[in-house]
This record gives sequence, C-alpha cells and structure tokens, in this order.
Amino acid sequence: MTENTLVIIGGDAAGMSAASKVRRSQPERKIIVFEKSAYTSYSACGIPYFISETVKSIDELVVRSPETFREKYNIDVRTMHLVMEVDTQNKKIKVLDKERNEEFWQLYDQLLIATGGKSYCPDITGKDAENAFGVSTLKSGINIEKFIEEKKPQSAVIIGGGYIGLEMAEALLIRGLKVSIINRGKQLMNTLDPDMGEMVSEAMQKLGITVHCEEELKAFQLDGNTISAVITNKQSIPADIVVFGMGSAPNTDFLKDSGIELGVRNAIKVNSQMQTNIKDVWAAGDCAESLHLISHRHTYIALGTIANKTGVVAGSSISGENPHFPGVVGTAVCKICSYEVARTGLLEKDLKELGIEYVKGTIKSRTRAHYYPKSKDITVKLLAEKNSGRLLGGQIIGEEGAAKRIDVLATALTHNLTLQNIIDLDLSYAPPFSPVWDPVQTAARKLINDV
Amino acid sequence: MTENTLVIIGGDAAGMSAASKVRRSQPERKIIVFEKSAYTSYSACGIPYFISETVKSIDELVVRSPETFREKYNIDVRTMHLVMEVDTQNKKIKVLDKERNEEFWQLYDQLLIATGGKSYCPDITGKDAENAFGVSTLKSGINIEKFIEEKKPQSAVIIGGGYIGLEMAEALLIRGLKVSIINRGKQLMNTLDPDMGEMVSEAMQKLGITVHCEEELKAFQLDGNTISAVITNKQSIPADIVVFGMGSAPNTDFLKDSGIELGVRNAIKVNSQMQTNIKDVWAAGDCAESLHLISHRHTYIALGTIANKTGVVAGSSISGENPHFPGVVGTAVCKICSYEVARTGLLEKDLKELGIEYVKGTIKSRTRAHYYPKSKDITVKLLAEKNSGRLLGGQIIGEEGAAKRIDVLATALTHNLTLQNIIDLDLSYAPPFSPVWDPVQTAARKLINDV
Repeated sequence: MTENTLVIIGGDAAGMSAASKVRRSQPERKIIVFEKSAYTSYSACGIPYFISETVKSIDELVVRSPETFREKYNIDVRTMHLVMEVDTQNKKIKVLDKERNEEFWQLYDQLLIATGGKSYCPDITGKDAENAFGVSTLKSGINIEKFIEEKKPQSAVIIGGGYIGLEMAEALLIRGLKVSIINRGKQLMNTLDPDMGEMVSEAMQKLGITVHCEEELKAFQLDGNTISAVITNKQSIPADIVVFGMGSAPNTDFLKDSGIELGVRNAIKVNSQMQTNIKDVWAAGDCAESLHLISHRHTYIALGTIANKTGVVAGSSISGENPHFPGVVGTAVCKICSYEVARTGLLEKDLKELGIEYVKGTIKSRTRAHYYPKSKDITVKLLAEKNSGRLLGGQIIGEEGAAKRIDVLATALTHNLTLQNIIDLDLSYAPPFSPVWDPVQTAARKLINDV
Repeated sequence: MTENTLVIIGGDAAGMSAASKVRRSQPERKIIVFEKSAYTSYSACGIPYFISETVKSIDELVVRSPETFREKYNIDVRTMHLVMEVDTQNKKIKVLDKERNEEFWQLYDQLLIATGGKSYCPDITGKDAENAFGVSTLKSGINIEKFIEEKKPQSAVIIGGGYIGLEMAEALLIRGLKVSIINRGKQLMNTLDPDMGEMVSEAMQKLGITVHCEEELKAFQLDGNTISAVITNKQSIPADIVVFGMGSAPNTDFLKDSGIELGVRNAIKVNSQMQTNIKDVWAAGDCAESLHLISHRHTYIALGTIANKTGVVAGSSISGENPHFPGVVGTAVCKICSYEVARTGLLEKDLKELGIEYVKGTIKSRTRAHYYPKSKDITVKLLAEKNSGRLLGGQIIGEEGAAKRIDVLATALTHNLTLQNIIDLDLSYAPPFSPVWDPVQTAARKLINDV
C-alpha cells in the first residue's frame, strides 16, 4: 500500500468530526469510514423529540449525509459496514459488508475507533423482544416510531430514571401513553444528589408519570416474542412497550483480542491526544474514557459534546498536530416538559468516596426579576471544598431559563474558581433575564459563610 | 458622640446592600441612611416594564421598604432627606429634610456615599419641560406613567440609543405610541461594535421604531413649558413626550468642595475596598468608578449588579473585614421585544485605543438544536488577543435564549481564558438548549484559526 490510509470505525459525531478535521488539515489524505448503519453524523440526542413528534422527520436529525461527506469532503464513507475485529499487529480490520453479506480485511496506516455506545441492558430473557427498545442509534428511533404507529401501545415502562429515560418518558407521555419509570435508586437521576433527585421525582409525578423508585428489573413476562409485563423485585407492571434508559455502554466488545487497553466500564483508555496504548490507533467519543478534571480519575461519560470535541482532538493528533484535550467536568442538562435539570462536577457521594472535605448549600431563587412575567422558580445546589472554598460541583433544577446557568459553574469548575470568585463575577443582568444577583451567585453567597 | 455612627447617603442598591452587610456583621452598630426619595432598595431597571404595564404596580419594583429596614434590620432610614454637602474635615454632612424644609448637620464616624446616578442630559433649554423625563429613579417612572395616563401622548422621541433608550422605546411602543430614537452614532448601542450595532438598528426598525442615527439633539421647540418638537442637526421631530436615554452620570455635584477625589466622568475614585481618598469615607454603586479588569483602566459603569456587589464590599470594609473587589468586565444585557443583546469586555475601538493587537470573528448559529422547535438565530462576535488567543471581548445578538450565554464569556474574560480554553469547556448540551457546540464555542472555533 503506497497511500497513507486513515481508517475510521464509526460515522457519527466523533468519527466524522475527526474525519472532517483531518480533511481540513490534509486535503489529499485517504480517509475511509466504516459505519454499521445507513446514517452518518446524526443527533441521537434528538430521538426523543422524533418520538414525541416534535421533530417531524428522522432526516432532520441528520447533520450531514454520507453523500455529502463523499462528494463535498472526499471522504470514503461506507455505510452498512460492520467492523468485527481489529488486528493491530498486522494493522488491518475485519469488515462485514452487511448488504452483500461479505467479509473482508481492510489495511490501515492509522486507525480511529469511534464506535460509540449502546443502550445498556442487563442480560435478561426478553431484552430482545419486539417491543423492547434501546435509544442509542437513529435506527432504534425509527424502530420505536414504527412500533408506536403500527401497534398503538397504550402503556410504556421505562427501565432507568436517567436523562434518556426521562426524555423518553416525556416523549411517550406526549404520544398519549401511560408511562411508568422503574428506577433502582431511591430517587430519579442518580447523576444528582438525592435531595435534588427527589425534586425531579416529584416533578415527574406532577407531570403524570408513575415513578417506581427502589425497584429493580428482575424479569420480563413474555407472550411469544413480546413483553407483556415488567417484573421487578416488588411487582409486575403491564407494558405494551419497554424502553431501556439505563445509560450507555461502550461498543468495544469487538476489541477483546486486539491488545487495545480498556478501562472504566470497558471504555477505551486514551491519553490527552486520544491515542490508545497501541501505536497508530486512536479512540474518541462514546467508546472512550474521559479524564474528570475535578476527581482526576478516569470516567465514562457518553455525550455528544464530548464526542465532538474528542473527535476533533483525535483528528488533530492524526494530522500530526499536537493537541491536548484537558478532560471533562461532567456537565449535563435535560428538559422534561417544563422542567430543566442540569449538573456539573462532583456529587456528594463522589466527594465522600474521594475523601474530600466539602460544604454544601442550596438556595431557591427566580429565573427573572421577581416582578417580571414568567419568572420561574430555580433551585441551585453548590458543593465547595472546605477551607479553600473551591467549587466542586453544581446542580440546578428549575423551569424555563434555569438550566443553562450551569455553564458558568462548569467554566468556574474547570478553572478552579472559588465561591468568592463566583460572587465577584460580572454576570449579566436585566429584569427579563435574572434577578440582580444571578441565582448561581446567590448560592455562592449563601455557601461561602460555611466554608 | 459616644456611639460609632455609620452614615449612608442613598438608600438604593449600594447603600442598602452596605447597610445590610454591616448590620449582619455588627448587630449593634448605629446606622443612619439618608434617602432623598420616598423609596429604598428599588429596581430602577424595572421602570421600563412598569411603563409598558408588564409590571402592574410600582410597588412591585421595591425589594425592601424603609419600614422593613427600620423594623426588621434596625436601620434608621430617613426618606425625603437630601444631603447637600459633605464636610470631611469635621466629619459631618448637611442634610435637607424635604418634608419639613429644614436643614441640619449630621455628624458621622464613618460615611458611605451611595448617591447613585442620574439620567444624563445636556444643558439645553427645555430639558426640564413637563413632558421631558429621565429614567433613573422610581419617581421618574411614576412621573412618566402619570403623564401618559393624563396627557395620552401619541408620539415619543427617545434621545439616545443605549440600553435604557431601547428599553423605553419598547415600553412606549407597547403603550401604542409612535416611537422615534435619536442616536448620535452611526448605529444604535455604542456599547457594541458598529457591525453588531447595525443589527440592533435593523431589528428596532423591524419592530416599527423609527431610528435616526448620526443625528444629534440641538434644541427643543417649546410651547410654554412643554416640548412640542425635538430639533436635531438634521430635522425637527414632533414629540408629545421626550425621554432621555443618554446614559447615566454620577450624583456627585454636592461633593465639589469636600476634598473627595473624583475620576472618570466625575465618579468617585475608590480602591478595591471602596474606600475614597479620605479616611473613613467610602463610596459604592453608580456614583463610583470601577476598575476594568481587561483594560486595567478606571471606568464608569452604572449597573445594579455592580451597585449591589460594591455595596456589600463597602459594608464588609466598614465592618473591619478585609474584602477585595477585583473589578468589572463591562457585562450588560438587554431585551427589546423578541431581541436579546449582550456584551462583555472590550470593543474594537477600545482595543485600538489601548494599542492591543487583536483578531475578530463573527458567527451565526442557533439557540437550540437546528431541528428543535423555537430554535432561533444567534450571532456571536468575539475579540481575542493576537498570538496569545486570550479572549478580550464578546457580543451576542439573538432571540430567545441567546443573550445569557454572555456569562460564560464574562467568566472566561475575568480569568484570562484563551479561545482554546473556551473550546475545551465542558458546556451543557441537550437539543432544547443548544446545538452540540454551544454558539460561544463555535465562535471560538472559527476565530482560533486567525490567532
């Protein structure tokens, strides 16, 4: 092989961000992308809005099509191609052309693994039933929509009370289904502290969603290849459709004999340039680990933002540049009907586990000046290091205009700001946007007294 | 005098923030506040929303009444008392009791000047006409409302195209008046770069406001004590009501023989503890200068956020603590009908004046995922230092959900973040809140190529 070939496995956020970055840096480089589905660069985060019919066509979720990448960017995108094995010693991968049902070996000079994540579900009989769905690929969104249209389900059980679970609960509620959520923890959203999670549980119940906390999936009651009820440690809940919202797991099973080192939850270990332990092999996106800037530990977080960023970093490194991706602080946000929930940094349980002494404080404020119409409640909880006052984490629950304030806290966390630094920030104010002290500052003003 | 008396001149944001802070630190301290109006702690920023009848009662704009301060906080608030003179040598002030029309001297041990600002207007005959109004005190808001109710004006001319001018333009438009704005500069909002100001000018015209740029107030055509038309260098514009939106000037005329040093635009010079050049005399809020953290120059910015912050700092210093107020970055935001405008840091003209080499870049993006309903346009302009890539300023114009993003840039500016730092930030994303790259990061990604 005379050409210097970059092979990318996975044509979504990380893979195509990397491909685009390499194309900008190296206009002549040969780039081949293998994507197991028929789509590239789509917004899996948009699936709940497709199911709720907020987004009318699945095509709206596609940012750039395979044709666009081929024609405008000269990237050889091969959809419906599943990579089954990586042979790092001989620098080749085994590919299944799903349409022709043919296998072949593809050589690479450099390899980027960007296979993303899949909806996690435990190995229970019935998990592949025709009315059980994950929510990790565009295909899964199409399958759910098709099922709803054809079978007109009346009741849904969501397994797991995290972001995706709640967003899917909203979507199915909008479609007129009776929705229950089964959640192992005492409160929904284990990415929040329990006191904040409790507020989310209450909000979901107000919306008409039945929340079963401290209940665990034990089995499915099957009627042929269809689940008729979800059996927990406490009860049996009838279900016409079952959705897995138990988080994401990295798509790395095919790497087991590759020599590529895996870490947390079998995500691929990478350095700050997204290089794996094997020369000429990179990984990015939902299949890779992230370094958490506050805990200084590696973690697994599957999010489009990180996938896009690490994709660009990998592309930059592959192009011979010298990028450095510092890491993440675990910022996330979601909207369920009128409620907004956001978090960044560490939780109380993380701090206890790390042995970091901390103070905590929660305030209630308003999203706009108290006298301005549509001013809504907002609750802000902050965690800060004892003595130093350094911010360690923040959680926000509120209505319209509440959650995006988490970005100030994410910025503060990343750059080691203290509560006093936050109080001193020259944040924007006008009555339609905020009280004169932004709620994040009000929270810092309260908590600083306890530092 | 055996008691250690703190006298505060001015009972609005800065004065009452300081008084409250001292009360918390020194529960027994004697605190007297002289306030020239009948109100304390009110939101002058809310006046346009009172005029537009968005806020129904002027009382809603009052955060805490004089009675509350007297009864709950044991602060001796004396409303309708105007301070006319400060004798720093003998540590006393001359006070006019406006209700009794009596003058007296009041001794102080420590003095805080928090007299705020007033609507600036040039010394032109007719500026005190019965249909000419500033917008700096609650009283002015009441006067405007009363005038509209009684005289039913049909046309309004706003002098000045800054925040207050535009907010008042919106308010009067909502009340059904024909509104014109006279603006000296080539574009509205000289707190933005001209290219961004042009977008504001266009937006205002779309709303039905007549914008006269590059026109200057020359005289008023008077009919008795009523202005009948505003005469500019170009034309005469009939006006039933005239509003001054030419910015704020500090209320410091009464200090002229006090020995207290004044600086930019006659605002009071202070250090980072809000101490003036005279021992035992502090100043805070709209009557004082601010240190700009990016230009490292002193500046005059009249804003409620700064007044609240510097009031607390002054109170802390007065209480014998050792606070340090670092300064401001010039963050501001406003909303005119559906348009949101925000800015922070320095403008191109500031950078040229300071001789700082910079790069600039503007992007258009969306406030939410492109497929999510109510996703709106947002334009972000960034200025960064040549070579280092350090952020120097940011400006945002957009519709719902656009402007509060300025806070991330304000935080970044304050802590010397570079464009790469901004790109690396772990900002929140979900389709209802943002594209996967937040628009501020998209702007940084574009501009970094030019650094």
